[in-house]
Amino acid sequence: MATFFLFLFVLSHALCFSEAKVKGPVTYLWPLPAEFTSGNETLSVDPELSLVFGGKGGNSDIVRLAFDRYKAIIFKNSNGVSGLDRLRPREPSYDISKVRVVVHSESEELQLGVDESYTLFVLKKDGKAIVGEATIEANTVYGALRGLETFSQLCTFDYGSKSTQVHKAPWNIRDKPRFAYRGLLLDTSRHYLPIDVIKQVIESMSYAKLNVLHWHVIDRESFPLEVPTFPKLWEGSYSQWERYTVEDAYEIVNFAKIRGINVMAEVDVPGHATSWGAGYPALWPSSSCKEPLDVSQKFTFDVLSGILTDLRKIFPFELFHLGGDEVNTTCWEATPHVNKWLKQQNMTTKDAYQYFVLKAQEIAISKNWTPVNWEETFNTFPTKLNPKTVVHNWLGGGVCPKAVDQGFRCIFSNQGVWYLDHLDVPWEDTYNAEPLEGIHDPSKQKLVLGGEVCMWGETADPSNVQQTIWPRAAAAAERLWSRREATSGRNSNVTALPRLHYFRCLLNRRGVQAAPVSNFYARSPPTGAGSCYVQ
Amino acid sequence: MATFFLFLFVLSHALCFSEAKVKGPVTYLWPLPAEFTSGNETLSVDPELSLVFGGKGGNSDIVRLAFDRYKAIIFKNSNGVSGLDRLRPREPSYDISKVRVVVHSESEELQLGVDESYTLFVLKKDGKAIVGEATIEANTVYGALRGLETFSQLCTFDYGSKSTQVHKAPWNIRDKPRFAYRGLLLDTSRHYLPIDVIKQVIESMSYAKLNVLHWHVIDRESFPLEVPTFPKLWEGSYSQWERYTVEDAYEIVNFAKIRGINVMAEVDVPGHATSWGAGYPALWPSSSCKEPLDVSQKFTFDVLSGILTDLRKIFPFELFHLGGDEVNTTCWEATPHVNKWLKQQNMTTKDAYQYFVLKAQEIAISKNWTPVNWEETFNTFPTKLNPKTVVHNWLGGGVCPKAVDQGFRCIFSNQGVWYLDHLDVPWEDTYNAEPLEGIHDPSKQKLVLGGEVCMWGETADPSNVQQTIWPRAAAAAERLWSRREATSGRNSNVTALPRLHYFRCLLNRRGVQAAPVSNFYARSPPTGAGSCYVQ
Repeated sequence: MATFFLFLFVLSHALCFSEAKVKGPVTYLWPLPAEFTSGNETLSVDPELSLVFGGKGGNSDIVRLAFDRYKAIIFKNSNGVSGLDRLRPREPSYDISKVRVVVHSESEELQLGVDESYTLFVLKKDGKAIVGEATIEANTVYGALRGLETFSQLCTFDYGSKSTQVHKAPWNIRDKPRFAYRGLLLDTSRHYLPIDVIKQVIESMSYAKLNVLHWHVIDRESFPLEVPTFPKLWEGSYSQWERYTVEDAYEIVNFAKIRGINVMAEVDVPGHATSWGAGYPALWPSSSCKEPLDVSQKFTFDVLSGILTDLRKIFPFELFHLGGDEVNTTCWEATPHVNKWLKQQNMTTKDAYQYFVLKAQEIAISKNWTPVNWEETFNTFPTKLNPKTVVHNWLGGGVCPKAVDQGFRCIFSNQGVWYLDHLDVPWEDTYNAEPLEGIHDPSKQKLVLGGEVCMWGETADPSNVQQTIWPRAAAAAERLWSRREATSGRNSNVTALPRLHYFRCLLNRRGVQAAPVSNFYARSPPTGAGSCYVQ
Repeated sequence: MATFFLFLFVLSHALCFSEAKVKGPVTYLWPLPAEFTSGNETLSVDPELSLVFGGKGGNSDIVRLAFDRYKAIIFKNSNGVSGLDRLRPREPSYDISKVRVVVHSESEELQLGVDESYTLFVLKKDGKAIVGEATIEANTVYGALRGLETFSQLCTFDYGSKSTQVHKAPWNIRDKPRFAYRGLLLDTSRHYLPIDVIKQVIESMSYAKLNVLHWHVIDRESFPLEVPTFPKLWEGSYSQWERYTVEDAYEIVNFAKIRGINVMAEVDVPGHATSWGAGYPALWPSSSCKEPLDVSQKFTFDVLSGILTDLRKIFPFELFHLGGDEVNTTCWEATPHVNKWLKQQNMTTKDAYQYFVLKAQEIAISKNWTPVNWEETFNTFPTKLNPKTVVHNWLGGGVCPKAVDQGFRCIFSNQGVWYLDHLDVPWEDTYNAEPLEGIHDPSKQKLVLGGEVCMWGETADPSNVQQTIWPRAAAAAERLWSRREATSGRNSNVTALPRLHYFRCLLNRRGVQAAPVSNFYARSPPTGAGSCYVQ
């Protein structure tokens, strides 16, 4: 029923949109809620909208801060700083004057699988309801955050009456995500991203209901993060200013948490680690052959263990990414002391790769982390990986089906569709990529935690990172949040494109540099003058 | 002496920068102050920095709000929301605990030529000074704002000690702008820019000490602005959501004002006005020939007068831009009733163009505005223009010399160097463009109000507008602010480039999407991994 309604609704507006002249009210939600019904009333929303708490967890700072953020978003147009309220027509009363947020649990723990479900009702004051209000009910504060986001998308500024309105009320929304893990990778090694930029990305993630920031903090090019136990490591940063203190990292984790977003840090070993040796050259096999990390030295694992000990204090999320991709072992063979060690241990380089990855897993697990590894580890020694391992797909399709067949959990990031640095991937390829493809057994489907779009940073810096992320990350976000049936129709140009145009413009309106939707290359400039809603 | 010092200072760091490994403290200011001396001390700055007022105008909301903004910028790294202060080493005392702002005038009027001069001293507590402080003294609050910006650039976060420091103290800065008019044009007709995006641009302008936002609000493609007297005009907007209310415009003007930035609106007539007819088709010569505005109808001038009456309430700046460029009069000749009118009036189309421009000037002047017109008006009928006219150069070089020769004031925007949509103009061409070129008589030089970089919007929308503006707008900003001798050396790669790299990264750190400095095409992505400070 909800889906049926949706199709009619979208169809009836798609043609209008092509002329950039939408007449009459429309309400476009992104990502689509699991179930919803709506009506035909237009309600006015009080600019003095107030928050009413309910439930054990309603009186939470997280809810209060979110309400303030969303109120600023909803009333952008009425929110003058120049004392101009007198210029506005005052309405004697509004249909919606309160948002009631009822949260049943007082726990604010944010872990994988946290309950993000919510219901949202928006009703006019009438015989039944004494006051008109929006009611959000959720088991956790994080569900309440998702409900507030949806409510903010229901509110539109009407330029005719100069008031904020909810069209198509009453709304009755029952929503929850399809996947527990809905991630975005940021790479701060290829280009340093200042804290403010990372915060901008996190804030925008919350608009699309993404919930994991995969912070690929270090790589071969630079090591920007402070590690107190090994204080020379961040000598591998690009410059004295392109660094993150421990406090910066805490702040990012907290900024994300209060938006319902976990931060999964990555320490990619044993490859992708040249920068480690700027401070500690002993980590290189030799000064002329710098990667992978020297597998033959105890010091290497002492440093790794030190890093993980320090990071454990910062990153409470149960998942921790250990990388393990693209390991070229030539340096191990070519460096005499490492080669000698390999022979002593009776190891091939492939054995040594496995040895390194498993040892890193042990360290992470000993710190109560669940290890995530890029798929090469699974492709190379599937039966040796710790059973807790989450396999992170990237090379192509078909990996998650194999991983879940062997009982591993999996994250989908097929580079052909979900690597955002692949600029020639159109939004619909991102949208139509299905993490469960090839997995039919429901018990195995459950092992797919979700997916992640990856914003590798070689050509993305603070000037263009948001422009490269959006709007395609939103396409993946709906795939991961909304019901499979609702996102798997044949004609996404009708069922999704008008809403995606609208969401892109919503991001722009909120100050996010989301690029035109329909350019052949992502993040290209608009090809000429025109409306946001069709470009 | 100050200049001499500067050269040594820049030279000593330029080579280091090329390796992206600057060791030791550097302090780079952009734009360069008129005069300054510095020393060799490093001072610590108290995160609890307080503001002390002085003078008739010191206790101004404008100063207080600015201090709060700059405090947030200066202490970005220590400004945790997670209660982590306990993790930071507490220093028992700081060298700088106060910023004393002395403002002599209590007037907050912001007009062309407002006094933006200031002095800034940063001194350590010692026998002479009882408390260490930064002292900003200015005649107006707007001078104080410029001083606070400079002070914020002196403060750098030191990742070693995790504290904010001022290097090379004591600082003794005496600063004032070279030109009164330092503008940036934003075009909200070719692409709508949401209020938040315009605010982001204004905020970033203040970092470069630009002081005029030239709001090219309407053009042939769309008419987004509400005009209460002619309420159908904004039916020429792209969509019902791509609009500005009167209140939005007030808010933008106020947001700019408290940052010391005037907003000069433009109503470009008689060309560039097709969108006016969406609401009032009578403004078109005919429905098949829509531009220029119908010169033969009284209604056309009634509408123009109504628009200017409404806008006068919103825009207090004494300058108002009437456009007048690229007028193709074919439609006037081709439309029978207009052609007939021309004959009745015994006018050529060129006469009618002059008639329209002069009539628009009269209306603007009657509303106590000084008219600004694009250079075609001056090129076509120089002796007829109202003597108050400010001629806005754009087509090429050599126009301001001619305009000031005839006693007109002039704004320099030579498209070959200062049109930001010309992506193939390298930063140094922007930097080396001199508004006074070809004008040698000091009394005539005074008629050059300054210059403006123009961000035409055909391929610039919210996704990339900041990326296209910065860093080249900063190059023009220094040209317009700093002393001519300091910016006219032969080797800007040594005297300016390292500081411009630094300023670009400062913008990034403040969340502004400034693009790499050295790419062949402006706003191109970085070509590979690397440090902000060399890309």
